[in-house]
Amino acid sequence: MNTLAPVPDGGDESLMKLAVREALAAQEHGDVPVGAVLVREGRVLARGHNTRDLLGDPSGHAEMNALRLGAQRAGSWRLDGCELFVTLEPCPMCAGAVVAARIDRLVFGAFDPKAGACGTLYNIPEDPRLNHRTRVVRGVLAEECAEPLARFFGERRDGGGGGGI
Amino acid sequence: MNTLAPVPDGGDESLMKLAVREALAAQEHGDVPVGAVLVREGRVLARGHNTRDLLGDPSGHAEMNALRLGAQRAGSWRLDGCELFVTLEPCPMCAGAVVAARIDRLVFGAFDPKAGACGTLYNIPEDPRLNHRTRVVRGVLAEECAEPLARFFGERRDGGGGGGI
Repeated sequence: MNTLAPVPDGGDESLMKLAVREALAAQEHGDVPVGAVLVREGRVLARGHNTRDLLGDPSGHAEMNALRLGAQRAGSWRLDGCELFVTLEPCPMCAGAVVAARIDRLVFGAFDPKAGACGTLYNIPEDPRLNHRTRVVRGVLAEECAEPLARFFGERRDGGGGGGI
Repeated sequence: MNTLAPVPDGGDESLMKLAVREALAAQEHGDVPVGAVLVREGRVLARGHNTRDLLGDPSGHAEMNALRLGAQRAGSWRLDGCELFVTLEPCPMCAGAVVAARIDRLVFGAFDPKAGACGTLYNIPEDPRLNHRTRVVRGVLAEECAEPLARFFGERRDGGGGGGI
């Protein structure tokens, strides 16, 4: 794990590529391929991928894992000044966690028409009624982010697995 | 911790009293006093209280802690057939986690006008667009649940602490 590695050149797209790499790590153990990267002051503070099935943890989404690990490393639940990059639009739980952790900026790749809570079904991070607002950037490398998900669910259907997130 | 203890007689109110006791445990280490109890098939599967400040975990809300511990004990992220009792209306993160864990029924005490996501600002558990619906019962022992919160924030104000959840 490239802890506190300098952020690669190329801005949001380079960081989203790191998140895609994390998504592939989830797929290796049979979890829905979603990945996240948490950045502070030009450094990667934490990475996370979906471990819901691996660990039997309902809160084991990529974003939650990156936020928890980042908070551990930062020594505080307040992640002011941080940006979170995630391959799939966060669900209500993860969008709420982004606000709870006081993240400055959220960048996501693929939209989630079924559970997206950052512009699709809800827009929790930018809700002016909550006590913190996180700016949201949408659709960065959307196709590259969606591709492992399409392949994962396609294979499960072909194998008779069925499913959904 | 009374793991797998039989549920006391008296229905929702008795279980909410257990959740209030958990809330007081949070207060003992200076965290906002919120408590939760997870029940399955007439047994207490897990309890949790707020550990956000104690552990520096942005996801350390009472509900999240009870859900994670319950899933560990059940050996699965799917908590079908479970009911969650919590002293304060869940925020978006926790309301989303209730849905993600496939909880059957959520019972809360005090309403949260600032961040409540189970009827106040949002109604995430009962949103028909999501892939699971959790029934919500509101306002059980609301005053008893709100009292430790009022006292906690009152003392912080008196001591010049300020704050908010």
